[in-house]
Amino acid sequence: MEALAGRVLAAVRQQALIPRGGRVLVALSGGGDSVALLCLMAELARHSELSLVGIAHVNHQLRVPASDEDADFCRALAAQFELPCVVETVDVAMLARQEHISVEHAGHQARHQCFDRVAEQFGATEVALGHTLDDQAETYLLRLFRGAGAAGLSAMRPRLGRVVRPLLTIRRAELRAYLTSRQISFLEDPSNLDRQVPRNRVRHDLLPNMERYAPGVVERIARSAEIARADEEWLGLAASEAAVSIVKRIKSGVEVEAGRFASLPLALARRVAKDLLSQVSRKAVGFDQIERFRALAVGGPMRIDFPGCRAERTRGMVRLVTRRGRGVPTGSEPFQYRLEVPGEVAVPEAKLVLSADLVGKDSVKLRPSQENGLPLEQAVSADVAAGPLVVRCWRPGDRFRPLGLEGHHKKLQDLFVDRKVRQDERSRVPVVLDGTGRVVWVVGLGLGDDFRVTEATASVLILRVRSLGDKL
Amino acid sequence: MEALAGRVLAAVRQQALIPRGGRVLVALSGGGDSVALLCLMAELARHSELSLVGIAHVNHQLRVPASDEDADFCRALAAQFELPCVVETVDVAMLARQEHISVEHAGHQARHQCFDRVAEQFGATEVALGHTLDDQAETYLLRLFRGAGAAGLSAMRPRLGRVVRPLLTIRRAELRAYLTSRQISFLEDPSNLDRQVPRNRVRHDLLPNMERYAPGVVERIARSAEIARADEEWLGLAASEAAVSIVKRIKSGVEVEAGRFASLPLALARRVAKDLLSQVSRKAVGFDQIERFRALAVGGPMRIDFPGCRAERTRGMVRLVTRRGRGVPTGSEPFQYRLEVPGEVAVPEAKLVLSADLVGKDSVKLRPSQENGLPLEQAVSADVAAGPLVVRCWRPGDRFRPLGLEGHHKKLQDLFVDRKVRQDERSRVPVVLDGTGRVVWVVGLGLGDDFRVTEATASVLILRVRSLGDKL
Repeated sequence: MEALAGRVLAAVRQQALIPRGGRVLVALSGGGDSVALLCLMAELARHSELSLVGIAHVNHQLRVPASDEDADFCRALAAQFELPCVVETVDVAMLARQEHISVEHAGHQARHQCFDRVAEQFGATEVALGHTLDDQAETYLLRLFRGAGAAGLSAMRPRLGRVVRPLLTIRRAELRAYLTSRQISFLEDPSNLDRQVPRNRVRHDLLPNMERYAPGVVERIARSAEIARADEEWLGLAASEAAVSIVKRIKSGVEVEAGRFASLPLALARRVAKDLLSQVSRKAVGFDQIERFRALAVGGPMRIDFPGCRAERTRGMVRLVTRRGRGVPTGSEPFQYRLEVPGEVAVPEAKLVLSADLVGKDSVKLRPSQENGLPLEQAVSADVAAGPLVVRCWRPGDRFRPLGLEGHHKKLQDLFVDRKVRQDERSRVPVVLDGTGRVVWVVGLGLGDDFRVTEATASVLILRVRSLGDKL
Repeated sequence: MEALAGRVLAAVRQQALIPRGGRVLVALSGGGDSVALLCLMAELARHSELSLVGIAHVNHQLRVPASDEDADFCRALAAQFELPCVVETVDVAMLARQEHISVEHAGHQARHQCFDRVAEQFGATEVALGHTLDDQAETYLLRLFRGAGAAGLSAMRPRLGRVVRPLLTIRRAELRAYLTSRQISFLEDPSNLDRQVPRNRVRHDLLPNMERYAPGVVERIARSAEIARADEEWLGLAASEAAVSIVKRIKSGVEVEAGRFASLPLALARRVAKDLLSQVSRKAVGFDQIERFRALAVGGPMRIDFPGCRAERTRGMVRLVTRRGRGVPTGSEPFQYRLEVPGEVAVPEAKLVLSADLVGKDSVKLRPSQENGLPLEQAVSADVAAGPLVVRCWRPGDRFRPLGLEGHHKKLQDLFVDRKVRQDERSRVPVVLDGTGRVVWVVGLGLGDDFRVTEATASVLILRVRSLGDKL
């Protein structure tokens, strides 16, 4: 195997981005990074490390007619690799105007919606994006310019749901050298040179300047991002747990016990305040708003109007209510989390914590499941369930092969109907999927037949549910 | 009051850096920042917001004869302000050679030792340093260049023990404008222009470059540092608590339960590993070492030699032992922590957690104190004890006015002798001091008479001790 492909494979395995049986869809812009990604994934596929199921390209229509030529380039490259290619055309500029968001944000949204559709169509378990180590350092610095905390400074995740970034440990220059040495052509997007765009200034001016007197700075910044990501995971979990016992949902928002909020450690108080403000206002929340909310809770002003919501302090309680007579936040926002093995993850949307532990087969002694209360436990064959696990809400179209249905598929929607789960409760039911996207467990409702523990099972995974806020 | 002095006062009060009765020693280099600090502290003293007790200057002997002229400048400035001035001369270059440390490190060490001595001499409760918002951003970036985590990215603390930085929210340019408008002269240290020094490159090249296309970046970076500081405080506490139950001291190091270590959340595992490695090796510990230790604990290599110590995995345990036949880490390193009210702080050196809570006088119901075991509680007059509290180890010279000694002072050393506290245990006894440096409580041994709860006491502070690792 080529040296660079070997390094990519090592990173992919070490971070469990793509399992050996993974069915990978490559997101292709036609630029150098994504073309290199395609070549490297194809190389790994040749060595049977994964299988490539196709290519997705979004034509943003931002540079007519160049955008159409880019799409043609991607189609031609797909043909060369003998891969199916879906090109979706989206008028991103119009979308941005309609939704009152930036063109960048609209493009991001359009791309990810496209990737989701095409992944379903091709049965892809992973969607690979071509972000590099340089992109990671750029993102970190752009977030630092806004005075971000650990969440922002985590920058880009190697994996989020089925989106994976296999090149996040590779320098951009290495990819260019790889393409050059193989005489593989790619597109140069002239907008990447536009110094009006903050990222381009960071890329072409600031980072090279920093690198001159701090060699290795790109790698070091990426390391700080990695450390911040682990910190944020734990702090976010601790904050969710802290919130559960002091926050109550009320008709048009939430109510918080001021005294107990004020006595939280600062790191948790800031996160709880941010979560509450963004839940009720449904807007992005900045540091200044967080600090003003904290000031009110500890006895500053009695009332503050925030964008989209209002905070008031009365008799030891802080009420945070929506300002536009909109509905209560229902807690039915889509969610998706990664579940490490062993590890645990808070699912605030379901008010649950899910944990996964590996045990020897002999030591399996399950507490009886209580289907109308917690705790719930499920033993699963760890031989079959390829990590990392994902916990997410039900999506229309989700199917699994339930126990005792002789291998036939069943839609989760039909399961909900059979088990009399109300429409408004369905989006809160956590579904555990394995690394290849198969449904392992519909929590409290059913186990995938593929994953049951049999005579042949060597090692067993215990999935456990407890109420968020309960101590272990 | 002048506008700038008003802003400094607001920051000082908001962060509880100096209480109204604070006795401040100013550390003066003669440069613009410290000269501005002296003028601003003098202004606050004129308004009775604090009292200035003197000036300390360290003559580093690095630039002869300029260093001596700098000392003369500081003496003259002190005379002008009618303040006593102590100049200590230290051959920093020689110190660096003797101790095998950098000149920068040696200078830092020499300065802080000098400040400690002079603070004792003048009865100062605070030592004020002239670091600015620009220094804070520079420190953050220098740490980022090393790929630091939250501890490093916390940059400089507004307060650490009695060292305070009242100008940490003020831009350097504002201080220069302040001095210029008042025609106050200061020294220009030519070494500040030496671009060989990384900090000077950041100061004169990188930050101005960043500021050009990200206006306000210095303030934003300082904000990220502030957020990181709160995160690190909580994570450090959580890691200390996690360590207690899985780490055992052995003859020449420590022993860690590998399985329980491996199941810690990543954010805590990294901190526990770092603490153990630095405790046993007594050396600075880098990220790579932390990750190698983690790899060994989860089943990688069986044995790793680190600088100053060796890790071995056998039968579910990881042993980390010193490599030079040096003594066991005794846990008697000097310690000093801040205790918020309300709040709590872990003191790993004493294997304790100390907490402080405000209560109404009527609700005081103390559990009987157990002097030979935990928990211990102490009610203290919150009217008298000016926050923030400091918890630190005993220092030679510490004195307090114990209950029932008719107002006379007693040395802590004599208290230890009376109470038969063994020599090697003394450095582990936590001493709680109030914001003005008075001894409130020698934990388990005695209460300061000034702080006892009397008929006149309006509000009461409950100080509580529990073993590190116990749940609340």
